[in-house]
Amino acid sequence: MTDRLFANAVDVNGQPLELLVIDGRFAEIGPKVRAAEGVEVVDLRGRLVLPGFVDGHIHLDKSFVGDRWHPHQFAASLRERLAVEKRELASALPAAERADALIRQAASFGTFAMRSHVDVDATVGLDNLHAVMETREKWRDFMDIELVAFPQAGVMSCPGTAEQLDAAIAEGAEVVGGIDPTSMDADAEGQLDAIFGIADKRSAKIDIHLHEPGQQGIEQLHRIAARTRALGMHGRVAVSHAYALGEVAPDAMDTVAAALAEAGVSIMTNAPGTHAFPPVLRLREAGVRVFTGNDNIQDAWWPYGNGDMLQRAMLVGYRSGFYTDEALRVALDMATDSAAAVLGISDYGLKAGNAADFVVVNAPNGAAAVATAPGERSIVRRGVLWKGLLPKE
Amino acid sequence: MTDRLFANAVDVNGQPLELLVIDGRFAEIGPKVRAAEGVEVVDLRGRLVLPGFVDGHIHLDKSFVGDRWHPHQFAASLRERLAVEKRELASALPAAERADALIRQAASFGTFAMRSHVDVDATVGLDNLHAVMETREKWRDFMDIELVAFPQAGVMSCPGTAEQLDAAIAEGAEVVGGIDPTSMDADAEGQLDAIFGIADKRSAKIDIHLHEPGQQGIEQLHRIAARTRALGMHGRVAVSHAYALGEVAPDAMDTVAAALAEAGVSIMTNAPGTHAFPPVLRLREAGVRVFTGNDNIQDAWWPYGNGDMLQRAMLVGYRSGFYTDEALRVALDMATDSAAAVLGISDYGLKAGNAADFVVVNAPNGAAAVATAPGERSIVRRGVLWKGLLPKE
Repeated sequence: MTDRLFANAVDVNGQPLELLVIDGRFAEIGPKVRAAEGVEVVDLRGRLVLPGFVDGHIHLDKSFVGDRWHPHQFAASLRERLAVEKRELASALPAAERADALIRQAASFGTFAMRSHVDVDATVGLDNLHAVMETREKWRDFMDIELVAFPQAGVMSCPGTAEQLDAAIAEGAEVVGGIDPTSMDADAEGQLDAIFGIADKRSAKIDIHLHEPGQQGIEQLHRIAARTRALGMHGRVAVSHAYALGEVAPDAMDTVAAALAEAGVSIMTNAPGTHAFPPVLRLREAGVRVFTGNDNIQDAWWPYGNGDMLQRAMLVGYRSGFYTDEALRVALDMATDSAAAVLGISDYGLKAGNAADFVVVNAPNGAAAVATAPGERSIVRRGVLWKGLLPKE
Repeated sequence: MTDRLFANAVDVNGQPLELLVIDGRFAEIGPKVRAAEGVEVVDLRGRLVLPGFVDGHIHLDKSFVGDRWHPHQFAASLRERLAVEKRELASALPAAERADALIRQAASFGTFAMRSHVDVDATVGLDNLHAVMETREKWRDFMDIELVAFPQAGVMSCPGTAEQLDAAIAEGAEVVGGIDPTSMDADAEGQLDAIFGIADKRSAKIDIHLHEPGQQGIEQLHRIAARTRALGMHGRVAVSHAYALGEVAPDAMDTVAAALAEAGVSIMTNAPGTHAFPPVLRLREAGVRVFTGNDNIQDAWWPYGNGDMLQRAMLVGYRSGFYTDEALRVALDMATDSAAAVLGISDYGLKAGNAADFVVVNAPNGAAAVATAPGERSIVRRGVLWKGLLPKE
């Protein structure tokens, strides 16, 4: 493996940055680094170096990326949407191939890690999980993938699902999923009993899709925070979407934010285009970890998304009214450090001793990168020049 | 100029498309076109061909593209914002150079025409207009640019501005601008008298920035529609932003939409990230022409934007909840045909006899192009291979 000095870059604040890579790891990082004789110098021409993106919420088993275009179909209810999805997926490439295509596309934008939800229930069983695990294995040297066993159609209302979730964790998924305990199962305590029970038994994490509105959603968040505290799961529970946080009055938001912060429950938002969503800065000020992910990418749910987490950070900022550099860097943090912390990635970040993982973006600083989301990327993963302007290995 | 057959493409509906270009014009377009001996065949490998993007609302004199990064600064009022803008622009490259950089960037995404607002008032006079006209001249063989004399600080409240607007049209701007007649000038009829008067006298068009809220904005739209009808300016008046259309009850929206449609007043929206904006489909169903543009791009007003109209179409769809192919094609139409109609571009579109202008996008159809906004583009302008996969001339 060639040792290299990546010179003439800038960091997230636009300050000079150079990175010396020896044996695939960062040996030294600073504004100016001297390299020994024989080390190849790569001139990054003033470009920005970032630690690589982390997609905190993706559905690798649902996307049509890699398949033909599937025009979006109207569905009047969740039941109809699930039927449309089932029908469209039946005529698509196998899940393992589609997951492979989406991972490749995400990788091309500089995503190095992701948390993927995978449908697990009494009807599909573990088929999707097995398919995605097969693809995960193929990508193990590039993409860190954490898997969530996701009960898309509910837990209590779909008998046998709890057992499948348990089996999924036993077979290698790291996170127990949940969804809208009241509106899906009409039994909030029942669903939460089931998923917290599995997580506790198997030392798994939890990530719950929560679309429930207003006060109903807020009550759910209080329940989740209380259970997280009771089981000592600080930092190991996340709630995805949590639209209610963007729907209720500020004082109700602040009260539940304090509970989430104390319990160590993280919040994921993808900044949807037409729906209220959590107030990112206010949650962070309350001490809540907020991260982002692409969520659905060209699937039966909606046609948007390309796998690029820098564009996702732009959308988070665009929808949140982030204009200052400081606010734009928050959006970047949600797609890098905060998401990495939720996934528990060791070895993450531009730090001597860590694996030499980084993305080169044509922007003068991190705020500009978020605001403009330039498409050109160069990618170094575990010391290997993987894509971009640089000579390939 | 080399004659070429661009083969193996698809059209907006994903159907086979081939384009024969002779002497820089489309000689024949169809699912399968035979070329004479000696015509070079370019294989577009199944990619989508679009007629080129039209940016219906840009501010070429304001952007910092081409300059250093200018971090966004907080401003508590419009007056403060204008002071920040003045200060930041004073330390930036000259307007002509910044306009040049932004046009180049927009061109690289496949924009062939734009309507640029340019600040014209009693303090800056025609300086910005002259600078942008100089750059327009430089780009005349590639970019069709229509200029709006834009009274950013109001008309009546900024004495001397009306005379400058009149002078701007006399010197070559095609469109008289206006802004928030009530909230800026506290004299709606006064501002409208002034700008409709100039437009009538000089046979110019009109494009009015309207951010006024709710019922106040709706009343303004009724006034504008009435004056447009009275002067017989059908198709020559546009209102940009028109937030009020997204704020009032549907029946009030429908009433004013009918008036706008009858008068031939078009509506421009850039689908802002945090603000209500016009309901695109409902306006179109009422017969109103709705088009889009990037608006501010990395300037003192906000840090977002890159000049790409396909990404803008994506944002329009994302914010409007456009999921079906039909709805996604509406967003594309707003960035192509509808915007071209507002600008009055002759020779626009993929049609035998027209100049050979087109953009090649890596997507299977127009809906997919909007939903995913892929960055790769190849560009043919007036028969010249300008950028992309194709051999350069």
